[in-house]
Amino acid sequence: MSSCFGSALRVQIFGQSHSPAVGCVVEGLPAGEPIDLDDLQRFLDRRAPGRNAWSTPRKEADRPRIVGGLNERGETCGTPFAALIENTNTRSRDYDELRRVPRPGHADFAAWAKWHGCQDVSGGGHFSARLTAPLCVAGGVALQLLARRGVSVAAHVLQVADVRDEAFDARAVDLRARRHLEEQFARLRAGWPTGRFPTIQEDAGARMAEAIDETRRDRDSLGGIVECVAVGLPAGIGGPRYDGIQGAIARIVFGIPAVKGLEFGVGFSVASLRGSQNNDPYEVRDGTPRPVTNNAGGTLGGISTGAPILFSMAVKPTPSIARPQRSVDLVTMQETTLEVRGRHDPCVAARAVPIAEAAMALALLDSWLSFPPAEDRWSQL
Amino acid sequence: MSSCFGSALRVQIFGQSHSPAVGCVVEGLPAGEPIDLDDLQRFLDRRAPGRNAWSTPRKEADRPRIVGGLNERGETCGTPFAALIENTNTRSRDYDELRRVPRPGHADFAAWAKWHGCQDVSGGGHFSARLTAPLCVAGGVALQLLARRGVSVAAHVLQVADVRDEAFDARAVDLRARRHLEEQFARLRAGWPTGRFPTIQEDAGARMAEAIDETRRDRDSLGGIVECVAVGLPAGIGGPRYDGIQGAIARIVFGIPAVKGLEFGVGFSVASLRGSQNNDPYEVRDGTPRPVTNNAGGTLGGISTGAPILFSMAVKPTPSIARPQRSVDLVTMQETTLEVRGRHDPCVAARAVPIAEAAMALALLDSWLSFPPAEDRWSQL
Amino acid sequence: MSSCFGSALRVQIFGQSHSPAVGCVVEGLPAGEPIDLDDLQRFLDRRAPGRNAWSTPRKEADRPRIVGGLNERGETCGTPFAALIENTNTRSRDYDELRRVPRPGHADFAAWAKWHGCQDVSGGGHFSARLTAPLCVAGGVALQLLARRGVSVAAHVLQVADVRDEAFDARAVDLRARRHLEEQFARLRAGWPTGRFPTIQEDAGARMAEAIDETRRDRDSLGGIVECVAVGLPAGIGGPRYDGIQGAIARIVFGIPAVKGLEFGVGFSVASLRGSQNNDPYEVRDGTPRPVTNNAGGTLGGISTGAPILFSMAVKPTPSIARPQRSVDLVTMQETTLEVRGRHDPCVAARAVPIAEAAMALALLDSWLSFPPAEDRWSQL
Amino acid sequence: MSSCFGSALRVQIFGQSHSPAVGCVVEGLPAGEPIDLDDLQRFLDRRAPGRNAWSTPRKEADRPRIVGGLNERGETCGTPFAALIENTNTRSRDYDELRRVPRPGHADFAAWAKWHGCQDVSGGGHFSARLTAPLCVAGGVALQLLARRGVSVAAHVLQVADVRDEAFDARAVDLRARRHLEEQFARLRAGWPTGRFPTIQEDAGARMAEAIDETRRDRDSLGGIVECVAVGLPAGIGGPRYDGIQGAIARIVFGIPAVKGLEFGVGFSVASLRGSQNNDPYEVRDGTPRPVTNNAGGTLGGISTGAPILFSMAVKPTPSIARPQRSVDLVTMQETTLEVRGRHDPCVAARAVPIAEAAMALALLDSWLSFPPAEDRWSQL
Repeated sequence: MSSCFGSALRVQIFGQSHSPAVGCVVEGLPAGEPIDLDDLQRFLDRRAPGRNAWSTPRKEADRPRIVGGLNERGETCGTPFAALIENTNTRSRDYDELRRVPRPGHADFAAWAKWHGCQDVSGGGHFSARLTAPLCVAGGVALQLLARRGVSVAAHVLQVADVRDEAFDARAVDLRARRHLEEQFARLRAGWPTGRFPTIQEDAGARMAEAIDETRRDRDSLGGIVECVAVGLPAGIGGPRYDGIQGAIARIVFGIPAVKGLEFGVGFSVASLRGSQNNDPYEVRDGTPRPVTNNAGGTLGGISTGAPILFSMAVKPTPSIARPQRSVDLVTMQETTLEVRGRHDPCVAARAVPIAEAAMALALLDSWLSFPPAEDRWSQL
Repeated sequence: MSSCFGSALRVQIFGQSHSPAVGCVVEGLPAGEPIDLDDLQRFLDRRAPGRNAWSTPRKEADRPRIVGGLNERGETCGTPFAALIENTNTRSRDYDELRRVPRPGHADFAAWAKWHGCQDVSGGGHFSARLTAPLCVAGGVALQLLARRGVSVAAHVLQVADVRDEAFDARAVDLRARRHLEEQFARLRAGWPTGRFPTIQEDAGARMAEAIDETRRDRDSLGGIVECVAVGLPAGIGGPRYDGIQGAIARIVFGIPAVKGLEFGVGFSVASLRGSQNNDPYEVRDGTPRPVTNNAGGTLGGISTGAPILFSMAVKPTPSIARPQRSVDLVTMQETTLEVRGRHDPCVAARAVPIAEAAMALALLDSWLSFPPAEDRWSQL
Repeated sequence: MSSCFGSALRVQIFGQSHSPAVGCVVEGLPAGEPIDLDDLQRFLDRRAPGRNAWSTPRKEADRPRIVGGLNERGETCGTPFAALIENTNTRSRDYDELRRVPRPGHADFAAWAKWHGCQDVSGGGHFSARLTAPLCVAGGVALQLLARRGVSVAAHVLQVADVRDEAFDARAVDLRARRHLEEQFARLRAGWPTGRFPTIQEDAGARMAEAIDETRRDRDSLGGIVECVAVGLPAGIGGPRYDGIQGAIARIVFGIPAVKGLEFGVGFSVASLRGSQNNDPYEVRDGTPRPVTNNAGGTLGGISTGAPILFSMAVKPTPSIARPQRSVDLVTMQETTLEVRGRHDPCVAARAVPIAEAAMALALLDSWLSFPPAEDRWSQL
Repeated sequence: MSSCFGSALRVQIFGQSHSPAVGCVVEGLPAGEPIDLDDLQRFLDRRAPGRNAWSTPRKEADRPRIVGGLNERGETCGTPFAALIENTNTRSRDYDELRRVPRPGHADFAAWAKWHGCQDVSGGGHFSARLTAPLCVAGGVALQLLARRGVSVAAHVLQVADVRDEAFDARAVDLRARRHLEEQFARLRAGWPTGRFPTIQEDAGARMAEAIDETRRDRDSLGGIVECVAVGLPAGIGGPRYDGIQGAIARIVFGIPAVKGLEFGVGFSVASLRGSQNNDPYEVRDGTPRPVTNNAGGTLGGISTGAPILFSMAVKPTPSIARPQRSVDLVTMQETTLEVRGRHDPCVAARAVPIAEAAMALALLDSWLSFPPAEDRWSQL
């Protein structure tokens, strides 16, 4: 099944960009968890388009309507949580040409080949970034449950074009490092209500926004890298091999449109490191072994080590650009030239920041629920 | 469930490094597929240790015993395929110290935290690279079924330390590129029977082997990057979002011990590309749309485009090194110094080559069986 | 996961009796299947309450709103089908007492014990028969796809109290038997638009309705048996052991509230039969082996034999009755007497008829899609 | 996937009657659980054939070899438990004719239709009752874990032909009833070492054995009913709808060869009961609500009520009988007469007793692990 994921916590996504609604069903949430809908809305607002210069002018409220899974007190009641977001601002006529001519870099052609022309083309159908809205509804709920268990998650844009932000300090070894990471979190959160570009360093964000704006005027688009960290997960969460922390995150992250790469900890840099450089030694802290460094990104053998979980994901430049591109008319099977109309983000990296947080939260909460830690282990880090 | 994966094709891995045996069960193989056991053995031999200077001296035959799933003619019979590999060459006493002192960079500590000390430590238990042997049994079977459907898979070591091999030419656009890729395959295969370092360029392999040998003498280890390609998959295989081609590969790849990064096509390079550079335009070839370039690595929106599927994965340096490392005694909770004994690969990249092929084959066959293409679409590429 | 089922076809149910809506998500439907919404509505109307003397006076339109999964032509588009039914006619105050005092025979107490009091009590929450509405939406879609593949499904009330209807003639051996079964189908369908009690013999239905009405006036309720048959499924559909035809049907049927028994073919009667009586011999018909009799109910070893699939399910009397019953106040933990108010069916057997058809259709379509028969095998009876 | 089942606890069965071995993999067992191999063997011996007059003379040791999942202390280590039973006493030549002529009542023809003749015929292949041996290995392990949590499971033959045993007293309301059930358990267990026919009343068993022996001499076979009960499960285990206690048991039970019916509590009798008769009222006992009667068989809405879980399953007469039967030659497509040779049980009800216990134990342990009760709730009943 392609549009759902998870084990103890199972998330099902549905809807298309221009169908009546998009939504999610989340099964496996523990009962009795109050859901703060205002907090959820603030999280969703960070993903919503149409708020600033560097994203699509399509405006949509992203207001989820929760239709199942809560009791009268607004707590989870143990049975499936279900939420809907209406699709109100759809302009299907922008997509008339795309029914015949697939956009390079988009799923149009692949979907046509798979479903023999029966796919829903309009607005990108089920492949649209619009489907990350219900993912963020599920993720926003997961973030609240994790916070209650002492786990914080944050993400930022690490790179756009040749501009780089400061990386997360995820060593989390001693109090100084933890304090540094918390300062980075604080700087990120300060930008949320203002819609500032989501970087730790404000000037890096300003330069990224500038690069994006320039590219947009050039009728082109840009890719980027988003970095995400989770702090407070005890050691011992996850499982060996295919459904461990790395695998659970990977399955969700590679389901986010535009993602082409994922790495944990120092990632691809391991290729040129020696074991003596890459291994994270252990020390005793607060009566328990703790990794001194965190090259592993907080996970070994699929299981958490108690250090922060750290991943980076690469998002490609938005394929829908207004420049002329070579493509093929699927009816006549003649080559043709396509200029994509419609309203598209020139760079999705900024909007991918809460999406990365949602992916992290859902993967970690699923892992947590599959193997709940003992109460007295919650206090770690 | 952590040690199994797949949808239409489901693979269950079991056993530990020093348990009586390791093995796999594969459910969902079509009936009536002859399995060539000699061919399977040749594939497994490429993963087996103890064959050359750059791998562990632990020698094991890796001879699978197939206990279920075949009929009297040696064809798959529709019900679960099951295979066992006995663990014969185990030296558990090498691991006595490790029961108390976790190896930095290994899953020892994380497993102890998860299972409260009940984990099987010896030889790395279920986390051992030994468990990639049954993965390769399953993958070797999948490779035979894919070959029968016109899909070829190959991998090589792309990088070790600062030495790089020639990359696969996975543009596969025109006949010249396809011929070039086939030449690269031929050069790789020429090295198989001789146990040559698995690179396309023989001299790159020689320099990698040299770097590894030097590191080994220095009682240290090295990481690397393995690149894998599949040619011949028709467009339209896979599915949207979480269980598409990328997700199916990712889930298996991140279950291979030591993998810390994965990218498709140009991967992390997308961060600095523009849409006009990264998008793969379409042309008409053999009566069907085909991508002209292959930055996407053969998959868009989780579905194959007809171009070769291309991924790279980063493997970290073997954590088990003979140098003294800081760790903690889990019984006394005192810090201590560990020198790992036992027989360990100084670099797992070479042995990871058939493992990457197995992962690719299992992910693609699962995707194929979940949505079988029409007969007349097999001829593509 | 408890509120979803299926393999190649996966159905997720959500919502509670008094939450804003109930609904379903169905993943795995083939693309390009037109969905006839009028036909679907007619099927749902057979389940809807408030239409006659023997069901609850709670009136609800059961009009599904399809929010995802269709393309512009109203065909399935390959991605998840999602439908919602609003809950409009809810009277939660009827349930105030039940928050403290569990109804004997209902899930109230069990749910309270599982979720420590956080369950949604109102209207029975997620345990309500209301949740069979979205099951019927999914089932109604499945019935249309099966009909297109030559498979017909029908059910009727076989027994209420001591009144029995004529059983289905599911021998389907020769043309005469097939004709007989089709006559039975015709008599059932004749009653659909009129809301006649769903029996083959009209007088049996009249006597059942009378018995139910008498029980209702007596402030009590009655159980019954529903029999369901599917004709036209080729031999070779299903799979061995736990997910075969029997298992796939069983999992759904035992998820229908009130079901306490399920049998296939002659069912529990096998206990007193000899092998020579129970075995169905084979003959050659239309060039293929066909069972001469159908004691097996159309399935052996989990796989269809080509004979009609036949099951019966026992539904218990509605637990919500207006008579005084012994129960316990969960707040004071004192014994007390409960008289259930609210609007409840005195017998759910009649409304369970389309639900049984939905269960049959979803189980068979899932089995079909997991192992599609070759085209030329569709023509089998 | 057809040969595996379960959610938090996942069981995969593999092998065929005449393949080198049969076995199981069980994933999800908690770590640190000691497995008593002698106790496991005694449980398996109750299923093993060749021990008495009423079962097949094929003798097989059923000695499992555990190849993975235990640590050095013989405890579960958290990773998959895997066990093998070698197939030593195979006489494939008994099955030469069956390759062409399917046995009436057996899966032969259905499997041939599904796999187009590639199925493994010999000994019944994967459909053989032999495959209940690895099911019992998994179930025997589950029984040990349940016993440690205060849950006892027992089964007996309730009916063969027209002979009936005393039914379990599963009211479990007050101490007298609980004592009565324990006396019934004691009488059953007294017969285990002697291989007595597994009934509560010794004389009922003697008459059943006599009826079976008479049928065997008549070259025929007999069906029966097996009843199974579990005592000590706290209220609140299981889940709503499709994967609750009933569904979890049903999926396994309908995967046992020969099962054609399943009922919980009073089962099909609900059809002629009124709600006021069938509802189980609540009283307060030991400070918690408890059902006074147990018509529901211990489960409401898929969730346990704290009363004993009670089910009955109908097993058909063994299809392999030595009498001439009508069948079809699959090569010539001519009708023919078949006389089955080989060694077959004249009635499988007795051997199905431990199999029913295994099914109950695996379903309940899976439900338990999916939602572990708090420690202080273990003491109930």
